[in-house]
Amino acid sequence: MTLPVPQPPVTPIEWTGTWRDGALRILDQTRLPRHEMVVDHNEPETVIEDIQRLAVRGAPVLGIVGAYALVLAARRILAKDPAITRPEFLTRFEVDATKVADARPTAVNLPAAVARGLDLVHNTPGSPEQLCDALLSSARALDAYERDACAKIGVAGAEWLRGRKRFVTHCNAGALVTTGLGTALAPLYVLQEAGEAPHVWVDETRPLLQGLRLTAYELGKGGVDHAVISDGVAAGLMRRGMIDAAITGADRVCANGDVVNKIGTYPLALAAQSHGIPFVVAIPLSTLDPNTPEGDAVPIEQRPDDADIYLTEGTAAHDLSVHAPAFDVTPASMVSALVSELGVLEAPNAENLGPWRARVPGAQSGSAPGR
Amino acid sequence: MTLPVPQPPVTPIEWTGTWRDGALRILDQTRLPRHEMVVDHNEPETVIEDIQRLAVRGAPVLGIVGAYALVLAARRILAKDPAITRPEFLTRFEVDATKVADARPTAVNLPAAVARGLDLVHNTPGSPEQLCDALLSSARALDAYERDACAKIGVAGAEWLRGRKRFVTHCNAGALVTTGLGTALAPLYVLQEAGEAPHVWVDETRPLLQGLRLTAYELGKGGVDHAVISDGVAAGLMRRGMIDAAITGADRVCANGDVVNKIGTYPLALAAQSHGIPFVVAIPLSTLDPNTPEGDAVPIEQRPDDADIYLTEGTAAHDLSVHAPAFDVTPASMVSALVSELGVLEAPNAENLGPWRARVPGAQSGSAPGR
Repeated sequence: MTLPVPQPPVTPIEWTGTWRDGALRILDQTRLPRHEMVVDHNEPETVIEDIQRLAVRGAPVLGIVGAYALVLAARRILAKDPAITRPEFLTRFEVDATKVADARPTAVNLPAAVARGLDLVHNTPGSPEQLCDALLSSARALDAYERDACAKIGVAGAEWLRGRKRFVTHCNAGALVTTGLGTALAPLYVLQEAGEAPHVWVDETRPLLQGLRLTAYELGKGGVDHAVISDGVAAGLMRRGMIDAAITGADRVCANGDVVNKIGTYPLALAAQSHGIPFVVAIPLSTLDPNTPEGDAVPIEQRPDDADIYLTEGTAAHDLSVHAPAFDVTPASMVSALVSELGVLEAPNAENLGPWRARVPGAQSGSAPGR
Repeated sequence: MTLPVPQPPVTPIEWTGTWRDGALRILDQTRLPRHEMVVDHNEPETVIEDIQRLAVRGAPVLGIVGAYALVLAARRILAKDPAITRPEFLTRFEVDATKVADARPTAVNLPAAVARGLDLVHNTPGSPEQLCDALLSSARALDAYERDACAKIGVAGAEWLRGRKRFVTHCNAGALVTTGLGTALAPLYVLQEAGEAPHVWVDETRPLLQGLRLTAYELGKGGVDHAVISDGVAAGLMRRGMIDAAITGADRVCANGDVVNKIGTYPLALAAQSHGIPFVVAIPLSTLDPNTPEGDAVPIEQRPDDADIYLTEGTAAHDLSVHAPAFDVTPASMVSALVSELGVLEAPNAENLGPWRARVPGAQSGSAPGR
């Protein structure tokens, strides 16, 4: 690695000690950007609550949260009955683990992490104490893998983008959804650390404003120069020569390279293509889904709270009719480069993605993209 | 005219009687869509206030409001001093008229209408009573011209669009900004009246949400089927074959056909072009500016209240950095058809717009586009 990797600008979650005395500390993202409130969790139920009310969000970090929540569950079983037998421990653990896995229906990383934890306790010999220890080690390993993947994405992306100064991004695919530098934002943090002084135009990202609320917040924490724009502004900036590259994350990348991501990504890619500007997508490999052949095979989730999103403006009619798809599909042919912990793949397609598909961890069949 | 013209679905302003007993009735658009509050104005000052706080907005209707406000001013001068001489009347009238003209700095129609009113009183012989009568006749004529222009735009546009069912529009260029059917929405009302049952996707139009607040409201009043979408949704709908045409108004059309309109219009035009969907712009002829050669000659106004727009969400950081251009430029080459009261001009350009430019009423040099 030739480029330096900075510390992540924010810490959405962390485990604070040993399996006996530690807690899962969560930064409450619903209070951002105005309030930075962290809570130390000692029970899996309050972690589940935080997942459900979106205090912590984003597929990669949810897997890690799930793994740490299993430590909390196992520790409590042992604390209640220090003389518990291994079989009885495993029975009670399975009940708690299922609750954690079911905290959110659509994110694949959470149930996958829980499944790994269950495999672990069944396949690791030893006492309940030893299982607690193994669960924390496993969670820490997942945490470290994720952090390292972000660093690799950051360096690979930054090397590819080097020389470009002005970027646009959509939604939030940053440090807040991983335990590292994030995905789409990782190359920008690395460029900043390298003294390249990037400027980032931040799409506010309607209707839920993740760009306005979260991306602007963490770029500010990371010292990266930025300005928030309405989603309809970027195309005009491109026409006036004010953007050098677009970079986003993805909720899912299909087997052929089609990108399923937050609504509004496709028009950004279209504008980039029309102006000859690279459109780059950065993902952890776990986001690549070998079982979905193409984007149009993915059912596009409608926001269940549809009109409510708009009614909160206080400016809409009570009987408002709204159409609010959560995601859109950007065809692989519009993606200039796909970045993951494996490196950079230019012009991704069904063929050249083969080696990456072969290295995707675990199976992901039938899962819907996360929020 | 082969197609039937319906009544406008809403009445943003109207004069209620003779010049002696009438009032200028204004629908307060800041209370829409939840409250339909009308106020009868008898003093020019309260009309100016309503213009300034955007209770009434949109270049075409502001000209008419200005013309009626002159009637209120002239009547009051006479009421205070029924024996006033003509020269003294003219002096006092000029003072009030200047206040009306200055109510908003950027809209061209308002000062233009006041200038016409001043010309009228200076060039019309007779008593102050006769001048009051002439001012009301002149205002009514402007009102009627505008209403008729909208009907012509509606019919011409509807004839061109006939057979298409699903439309997208941006911002609000409807009955609320004219005394007729509006500009961009006029063809849709005519298609509805003709039994074509159009469906309209309404861009919410960030940051000020004119689509969410106003276009959805008036389409609902007109019985036109519609659904509000975030501005980033339309491109994906086009990709899925769910939109047959895009139609917007314009704040200014330049001599070469470049369109200056609400921010977010250009990416909509770009998406339409990429998907082979017509992009149509409907304007009253007064919006065509022969003195501005092309779009890039127009200084793009920044929202003066920049960050405030976003801070009202209650979700943004206090030190938020924002870039909020009010308008963008859509090159004439991307406009499939320009519609005005003169008819439909396909693929407008500097040459074929010549005959329209020659018929533009009055001069408009140096004016900035309205809000």
